[in-house]
Amino acid sequence: MLVEGENYRTVWMEGSVVKLINQLKLPREFSVFSCSGYRDTADAIRSMVVRGAPAIGATACYGMAQAALAGVSLDVAEKELGTTRPTANDLQDAIKHFKKNFNGKNAVEVAEGYANKSIERCRKIGEYGEKLIKNNSKILTHCNAGWLGCVDYGTATAPLYIAKQKGRNFFVWVDETRPRLQGAKLTSWELMQAGIDHAVIADNAAGYFMKKGEVDLVIVGADRIAANGDVANKIGTYGKAVLAKENNVPFYVAAPASTFDLKAKTGKDIKIEERDENEIHFVENTRVTPAKSKARNPAFDITPMKYITGLITEEGILNPWEKPESLL
Amino acid sequence: MLVEGENYRTVWMEGSVVKLINQLKLPREFSVFSCSGYRDTADAIRSMVVRGAPAIGATACYGMAQAALAGVSLDVAEKELGTTRPTANDLQDAIKHFKKNFNGKNAVEVAEGYANKSIERCRKIGEYGEKLIKNNSKILTHCNAGWLGCVDYGTATAPLYIAKQKGRNFFVWVDETRPRLQGAKLTSWELMQAGIDHAVIADNAAGYFMKKGEVDLVIVGADRIAANGDVANKIGTYGKAVLAKENNVPFYVAAPASTFDLKAKTGKDIKIEERDENEIHFVENTRVTPAKSKARNPAFDITPMKYITGLITEEGILNPWEKPESLL
Repeated sequence: MLVEGENYRTVWMEGSVVKLINQLKLPREFSVFSCSGYRDTADAIRSMVVRGAPAIGATACYGMAQAALAGVSLDVAEKELGTTRPTANDLQDAIKHFKKNFNGKNAVEVAEGYANKSIERCRKIGEYGEKLIKNNSKILTHCNAGWLGCVDYGTATAPLYIAKQKGRNFFVWVDETRPRLQGAKLTSWELMQAGIDHAVIADNAAGYFMKKGEVDLVIVGADRIAANGDVANKIGTYGKAVLAKENNVPFYVAAPASTFDLKAKTGKDIKIEERDENEIHFVENTRVTPAKSKARNPAFDITPMKYITGLITEEGILNPWEKPESLL
Repeated sequence: MLVEGENYRTVWMEGSVVKLINQLKLPREFSVFSCSGYRDTADAIRSMVVRGAPAIGATACYGMAQAALAGVSLDVAEKELGTTRPTANDLQDAIKHFKKNFNGKNAVEVAEGYANKSIERCRKIGEYGEKLIKNNSKILTHCNAGWLGCVDYGTATAPLYIAKQKGRNFFVWVDETRPRLQGAKLTSWELMQAGIDHAVIADNAAGYFMKKGEVDLVIVGADRIAANGDVANKIGTYGKAVLAKENNVPFYVAAPASTFDLKAKTGKDIKIEERDENEIHFVENTRVTPAKSKARNPAFDITPMKYITGLITEEGILNPWEKPESLL
């Protein structure tokens, strides 16, 4: 997508260096983060320089290519890169893809190929999903399932970008998405770069606007989808889904087939990452809670299938109990 | 309540000066804010040095006393104090109380009497409500309907303080309550001062813990209650109520009878304050959204009566469609 007029992806390789848009600096500063080895790349995933399941997947694949170029054992690299984040299925998927397709000399091509396929999947999600967006629609989204979370286009945002390219007018409600504020910081930045009209709201206000009839459609991303259609996504997704159902607002999950984890029978089989409680205590380096108070910080939640209207995948829009054909 | 061992109220009068615990400085610093005239007192309400419906009411009543002591027309003072915040019914109630009971020389007694009655109402709310709190209960609360939002005891917190005084053990989930973080800053500070075990969570995480079965009871306050039992309270309350119902968690609203506004037939008759969008853009003086992005900031929402299990009032625990006897 364009950043001040220039075309960018979230992750790419120059020589043996993996380059990432530094998402920890956005929206204040647009800068590129360089990882000279696979361990730096693992650190970048861990510290959330890059985040979002497909972007993590592509970054890990480039990290595997770095390890291969440096002559590091792929098993050693897998151990390092594969344990950087616990929830994203794409991470494992990407590492497996690399190990399967690497023939001893095609490291960069394998990673490039993986990234290009990821982009093509997102573009298709956009093509299918844009049909849901009518002129003057008001769409709510949670967190950043945007192109910054992918390699390009995004998942939840792909329908928005394609609809915009097709000249449609619409408005987006952006949940700020505490604790890490990815909506306020990243989704709003993406939408501004794309010239899409939007407003950031407190997570607490989503239900208010739904009840007022000011939300026509919710589109969110997914970090993992269980075999029964339960969806693991950013904390707060479950609450928005319940509110959407209560207010008869269609609730769509946009995700590529790689997000499905059929080994997880239901959402109960998906491990939820609980992150450092300081993400609650501190906002932008200022402590907001009293010293010594306690906090809890689950990073994801499970939205049961029954709250979901449909799954927007690169293979079409599915009913929430269906799986992409390629997985059958 | 105790602050580091000393007994405090949120508002009191010394000579003609109204003193307030400065809630804008908490939890970092405990300090007392002095208002030397009724206009300063109005400013303090407007800028949220004091917040919470009963505390605003008592403060406005003290402000009326200041105006009376200074020989200012009560109508002029009413115009200034009565328009400081649009949602709290107690504000109008307190000003009316002052005008009705002031006989030309009892300014301070009228305000003191109003504040003392407010405390007694909260204590009774606590006595009725504490029966809902079993040993090892996990209670979720939203925003600060604590003693800082009243004169003493609080509304939603009064049952907690009385249960604690009676030796019961329990745990409190504290919604941080964006955008102003009153839960993270104030409720957690209150609970620490009282030695009550608790954890602050992102507003997004409330549904997650309800679904996990880790919330036995929700108690929130109210800014205004319509004749049909619809409740106006801090933005996000509606969402928690819907999630509580979906997860079979009892959802109680604790509020004195003065919170009822029988002129409002339903929630639709209650005007919702939309505050400055900079409360969304800035967190602790740091801009988190991109420069020039837009935000929307409704400060309250309406929770329809059907989501409410009961109303904890100073006249007993009512069904949500009932009104306190004193109003009939």
